[in-house]
Amino acid sequence: MQRFIDLADLSRAEVLALLALAARLERAPQPQALAGRILGLLFMNPSLRTLASCQAAMARLGGSSFVITPGAGTWQLETREGAVMDGGVAEHIREGLPVLASYCDALGIRSFADGKDLAADLGEQKFSAMARLVDKPLINLESAANHPCQALADWKTLDELGIPPTGKLVLSWAYHPRPLPLAVPAATVHMAAMRGMQVTILRPEGFALPTPILEKARRAAAACAQAQGVAPATIEETSDVREAMSGAHVVYVKEWAGTTHYGDEAADAAARRAARHWCLNEDWFAAASPQCRLMHCLPVRRNVAIADALLDGPRSVVQRQAYNRLPAQMAVLYELLKPRETVSR
Amino acid sequence: MQRFIDLADLSRAEVLALLALAARLERAPQPQALAGRILGLLFMNPSLRTLASCQAAMARLGGSSFVITPGAGTWQLETREGAVMDGGVAEHIREGLPVLASYCDALGIRSFADGKDLAADLGEQKFSAMARLVDKPLINLESAANHPCQALADWKTLDELGIPPTGKLVLSWAYHPRPLPLAVPAATVHMAAMRGMQVTILRPEGFALPTPILEKARRAAAACAQAQGVAPATIEETSDVREAMSGAHVVYVKEWAGTTHYGDEAADAAARRAARHWCLNEDWFAAASPQCRLMHCLPVRRNVAIADALLDGPRSVVQRQAYNRLPAQMAVLYELLKPRETVSR
Amino acid sequence: MQRFIDLADLSRAEVLALLALAARLERAPQPQALAGRILGLLFMNPSLRTLASCQAAMARLGGSSFVITPGAGTWQLETREGAVMDGGVAEHIREGLPVLASYCDALGIRSFADGKDLAADLGEQKFSAMARLVDKPLINLESAANHPCQALADWKTLDELGIPPTGKLVLSWAYHPRPLPLAVPAATVHMAAMRGMQVTILRPEGFALPTPILEKARRAAAACAQAQGVAPATIEETSDVREAMSGAHVVYVKEWAGTTHYGDEAADAAARRAARHWCLNEDWFAAASPQCRLMHCLPVRRNVAIADALLDGPRSVVQRQAYNRLPAQMAVLYELLKPRETVSR
Repeated sequence: MQRFIDLADLSRAEVLALLALAARLERAPQPQALAGRILGLLFMNPSLRTLASCQAAMARLGGSSFVITPGAGTWQLETREGAVMDGGVAEHIREGLPVLASYCDALGIRSFADGKDLAADLGEQKFSAMARLVDKPLINLESAANHPCQALADWKTLDELGIPPTGKLVLSWAYHPRPLPLAVPAATVHMAAMRGMQVTILRPEGFALPTPILEKARRAAAACAQAQGVAPATIEETSDVREAMSGAHVVYVKEWAGTTHYGDEAADAAARRAARHWCLNEDWFAAASPQCRLMHCLPVRRNVAIADALLDGPRSVVQRQAYNRLPAQMAVLYELLKPRETVSR
Repeated sequence: MQRFIDLADLSRAEVLALLALAARLERAPQPQALAGRILGLLFMNPSLRTLASCQAAMARLGGSSFVITPGAGTWQLETREGAVMDGGVAEHIREGLPVLASYCDALGIRSFADGKDLAADLGEQKFSAMARLVDKPLINLESAANHPCQALADWKTLDELGIPPTGKLVLSWAYHPRPLPLAVPAATVHMAAMRGMQVTILRPEGFALPTPILEKARRAAAACAQAQGVAPATIEETSDVREAMSGAHVVYVKEWAGTTHYGDEAADAAARRAARHWCLNEDWFAAASPQCRLMHCLPVRRNVAIADALLDGPRSVVQRQAYNRLPAQMAVLYELLKPRETVSR
Repeated sequence: MQRFIDLADLSRAEVLALLALAARLERAPQPQALAGRILGLLFMNPSLRTLASCQAAMARLGGSSFVITPGAGTWQLETREGAVMDGGVAEHIREGLPVLASYCDALGIRSFADGKDLAADLGEQKFSAMARLVDKPLINLESAANHPCQALADWKTLDELGIPPTGKLVLSWAYHPRPLPLAVPAATVHMAAMRGMQVTILRPEGFALPTPILEKARRAAAACAQAQGVAPATIEETSDVREAMSGAHVVYVKEWAGTTHYGDEAADAAARRAARHWCLNEDWFAAASPQCRLMHCLPVRRNVAIADALLDGPRSVVQRQAYNRLPAQMAVLYELLKPRETVSR
């Protein structure tokens, strides 16, 4: 594995191997596996779990890391091609990225969606431009429309909880005061499709996930099912809470921007405000499986996206999801940087 | 030792053991003692000494650390229970803290007083809420009304300077343009009381230390004295400089908010301005012991709280205090994270 | 070597030994050479290359580092002697610097020019005051008028590219919307002079390098030439592009503040705006050697200081320069912190 940018770049077998590696490194630590190796971390946007778990994962494997945060100790970075840089931004990614890559053995990059042009964001124009500049193992720490580290940790969590591989996963929209990116919903749908699940996307009108996300997930579902010789995952959308929740094994809550008015700040804000009652509480689970679990990638706005009682109650597995970022990242880093002598696993 | 939150949680013998451990680690480094262990550091407020010495202490013992600074690379963290999080703060400590704890072997937290409600600050409402969320060894890196790492380093400094265990320590208020927390004065009085010293608190009217701080220190003084079979430490307050300084072995200078008007910004500012001549200089030491030392936890406003000539003169031991943060933190970390095989010390 | 503050403190032989050490550490890594050693990094100003390469260099040699960024997680630091600190700045370098030094084995400091008083900046008043407060090995990570780490990396780059030791180096001014410091131009001229090169400084009227910089470089040129028994480097200035570029082996582009109106914001801005056509492109190289290289220390404003086509074309070696910061810093750190047993090299 040379890069970890999109779960879609991996076969189902490769994902399962990463999950097995994560479990193995959890059980049997290898505190010297990456001794002397350096991970560079470039955060164009804020982070808590990704920032801490990447550093911790590297340390657990005996390696080191450094963090670069443009605008906080480091210059802002320009990403536009051909820009005449006479404004406030001092450095271009065309210089900054290859330089950072030259100082480390692997580079992780976080770069959120601009939220203005849906096609540009779905096409990963910015992250792809950055990735082309890096000639070292590269990890996507959340791009405009993807978050593969989160998806890998979530798959691990679903397995550990005994959620059936063909179980029903509801990806439910929730309210947020700002128009959040499509990265986690897209990654979640793709992950669930590769896992073989029955996916229902529950969202108000105006918040349907863009077709390219669904089509890509359906292609992955078909390929994974064919390789296993089973029926493929299904992906449906609805705005009917009761219909969606009926028989659900797990509800994955996420806030995201309106897709009808994507990039139109006023229209999007109005659409979101109209749906601000989409704050999940226990009532939503009336028709779900009694053991139905609640997932969320965090950070979460309490009593805005999810009610306190639900987050603090027995359905919630958000802590386990977050913890699983650590072994998931250890597996990815080990796989990208493993010593030559130990290529078998 | 599972947590290092308050010197009051330790017996005098346990503090002395930590001091002996600090001295031993200084003399005989153990560069591999904490190999593979990870310290998480959460700074809700600025830091220089604590930030640098914690990272250096972990490195000296062979371990690693990561730093999380809400608002600088990481989301702001909400601390209020039941908050409806529709404002600028993206994450609640109820998620953030257990997650960070799950990535490391010990967590250090700095969270200053809000300075609005004296009872809430003295009761450590915020830090206690945070501590309850952490299931790993925890270090208090300064809470609303405590700073045990500073107190431990200061005790070490007093010992090294040969300040008699029953000597006279004057805790003197000094002017500061902002209403600073009670954490260091409270921790200093408590430390000096456990050490057995004659403590005189010297401050203008309106700046008396709250009764709960004094009562807690007197209880500790009594318990420590009883265990040793000696007379307990004494704690007095005065606003008379000459009376306070008479025969003093050491003067510990600290700025703190008015306690009469605690949380009342305008009244407190007026009270502080009225006492802005409380900037210590050599004249203050006329009645003190000739060898009387000057302590301050830093950072210090030069020529506002203490005059240049005094800070740069022979009485000042502020550098030694600050340096001692390193061995003190090494001892605390070693004690919290020491390998199973080496439990004896 | 106790400090690395100015290339002028080293003989030519000592610089060559550092370059040989850098090449050796590149070929034959010593991943345990600085095990247990700690580098403190104090950044009063932003950084990308220096910040990342210092941390990476320390990690490559088995050591650790911590970063202190006043204003981002740490208090602002006062540098003025005798200041009455009743404003926004909480701590003085007289406390902060010795404290940080006491926590580490070597300290690196970045502190840019104030850009107000040319004599103060050229005299390194601020950095010298800081250096006097540090009793550990000290590295200049860019001061008001120096950047020796950059100069060492650039010398390595010139050697690797086969630029003749007596070749022609043009240091060309370029436009920048802000008045940048003289640190890199000064360090570049000095480095080229020690290397023995024919240096031509190409700049508009009003941007001549101050005489003290040139005189210091000429003294170094004479001393180095005498030691080798060869003709000394030459240093000339011109505003004639064609004359300067004629026969050039390498063009080092850098933006810097006007020196005629140094510190006069309005006059300097007007002078810079009048020269904003100084954005280098391929046309500038008509009279240069066909293989003439383009250097820049980065960050660079694309299409403001240098055109895209030139930066992305075959002349540009800016990436190699930036990469060489890593082995250069490894050599400096190794030399400052090397284990007692391995003093020979």
